[in-house]
Amino acid sequence: MLIGPGDDAAVLAPVRNERLVVTTDAVVEGVHFSRAHFAPADIGHKALAVNLSDLAAMAATPQWALLSLVLPGDWLVAEVEGLIDGFGALAIAHSVSVVGGNITRTTGPLVVNVTAGGTVESRKWLTRTGAIAGDEIWVSGTIGGARAGLEMLSDPGSLIPDPGCVAKQKTPEPRVRLGVAVGRGRAARAAMDLSDGLADGIRQIGAASGCGARIDASALPIEPGAAAWWQDRGIDPMMAAIAGGEDYELLFAVPKKSGRLRNVQRHVAKPAMTRIGVWLKDPNEFVVARDGRDEPLPQGYEHFAERREAKTTLDERREAKTTL
Amino acid sequence: MLIGPGDDAAVLAPVRNERLVVTTDAVVEGVHFSRAHFAPADIGHKALAVNLSDLAAMAATPQWALLSLVLPGDWLVAEVEGLIDGFGALAIAHSVSVVGGNITRTTGPLVVNVTAGGTVESRKWLTRTGAIAGDEIWVSGTIGGARAGLEMLSDPGSLIPDPGCVAKQKTPEPRVRLGVAVGRGRAARAAMDLSDGLADGIRQIGAASGCGARIDASALPIEPGAAAWWQDRGIDPMMAAIAGGEDYELLFAVPKKSGRLRNVQRHVAKPAMTRIGVWLKDPNEFVVARDGRDEPLPQGYEHFAERREAKTTLDERREAKTTL
Repeated sequence: MLIGPGDDAAVLAPVRNERLVVTTDAVVEGVHFSRAHFAPADIGHKALAVNLSDLAAMAATPQWALLSLVLPGDWLVAEVEGLIDGFGALAIAHSVSVVGGNITRTTGPLVVNVTAGGTVESRKWLTRTGAIAGDEIWVSGTIGGARAGLEMLSDPGSLIPDPGCVAKQKTPEPRVRLGVAVGRGRAARAAMDLSDGLADGIRQIGAASGCGARIDASALPIEPGAAAWWQDRGIDPMMAAIAGGEDYELLFAVPKKSGRLRNVQRHVAKPAMTRIGVWLKDPNEFVVARDGRDEPLPQGYEHFAERREAKTTLDERREAKTTL
Repeated sequence: MLIGPGDDAAVLAPVRNERLVVTTDAVVEGVHFSRAHFAPADIGHKALAVNLSDLAAMAATPQWALLSLVLPGDWLVAEVEGLIDGFGALAIAHSVSVVGGNITRTTGPLVVNVTAGGTVESRKWLTRTGAIAGDEIWVSGTIGGARAGLEMLSDPGSLIPDPGCVAKQKTPEPRVRLGVAVGRGRAARAAMDLSDGLADGIRQIGAASGCGARIDASALPIEPGAAAWWQDRGIDPMMAAIAGGEDYELLFAVPKKSGRLRNVQRHVAKPAMTRIGVWLKDPNEFVVARDGRDEPLPQGYEHFAERREAKTTLDERREAKTTL
């Protein structure tokens, strides 16, 4: 960077011949995390991770970030430093420069707003638009872990929460290498990240591309600890995992039997990629095939029950994003 | 823009040969505005204005903005639309593209976090560093209006608040044309915007540049309605205006008797520019000359009394900005 933190704004040299990709996202205490379950460093990690995940879904390489903290009066300097440390550690892991930020006070809950910027070669970016009927549906990593992790943390009867699920909830790993490799290798026609769950992601790409989708229930890569957790409680793990949000995995539309995705997988071995279904011609058909029968695809996960109530005063997040 | 709102991130074409300038700033209900006095459109205007002001202070031309809303559950759709309208109107006035954003819910007060991006030619940007002893201190427009406006709005005895002061408080005009013209014309050695008041700005440029400063009290362009308001209440208008924040005017260090600033003024007639003092060699000398005597320069304005309390748990905003 040419001018970094400490002035009115940061000055950056653009990367030659690359396009600029920018995104902003906030995490809010009591909505996206609770201070009872999240260490300050976890909050900082998650606030940056959800933004890097958005860049990864566009196949952009993250370059810089701005951190805006809206802090309650009772936060201690050591807690703020812990949050910034967690943010900074993930930034370093992805070679992201923290070029500036802002701190202001609030009488309400903590808000961490992050803006991330990255670069992508011309026409190598991925959007939600572009899936074609017959394309395969692929997803990275596992699904359902973040939602199960949240349930485990919130359940006082859960003495030993599954570490894999808790990590998915508290410190998700944005799939930056994978997203960039898929974009550069032109291995997908559409992509997005699973911030609001698989069902939501499928419907979003479907709506943007004019496709429906059929998911193969038996193929779903459900996080093992999550499946066991729901099974123990008499909940259908498949439906819970499809609806569960915050996995921050990547969802793709991939041309049928394409060698390009296999090529990407040779270079980016982790996370594993799973083919979970097919995009359909009918833009209103969203189904899950299980035991030879089609069931309707569930709706997306709502972070909290209050979200339902919010609809009366405020459009849902994804609709709002489209409006903006 | 190549990809606008509605996807995981926005994709933008960088401006050829220009540097990228980015800044982020939040306005918080109960800290920077109250819903009793601000219409939703005013809140949207102010949230963008404070960011465009930061770009102007760097001599950058604004290009795009991201709007992140953290909304209380009781906000009506019409109020959200009003806020976005106020934001959008100022964006249009400055040819700023709203390339994306985010909406999330909160149990606390409204937070509007904005990120603004702009461009500047190589080496044409302005920073807080660069003032030299003997340089003149110049300020744009008037000072004190925003603070007086806040006092008028908050005072139940104030039946007819001065419209000029109220406008400075609710809908400040970022000095974009002026900042860009000063940068392009190389008419200043240092600049910043007066978000936290003139006294704070003087001390910030002084600290960054290794200078002190002497202000000429009789030269200060105090907003007329503000001066009258304080005079009526037995408050020293000069000290109140110097300490008052949120004017969002620009402060410059200008080489002595430079013709370049006059050249800029010929092209950008409004706001008026006023020479108010001189930068000094001693980095610890910050004074106001009045009636032939030097008085100490007051400290910066604190938005709310609670800010004092905040210092025990949290560094002040400007210190935090440096840390980030």
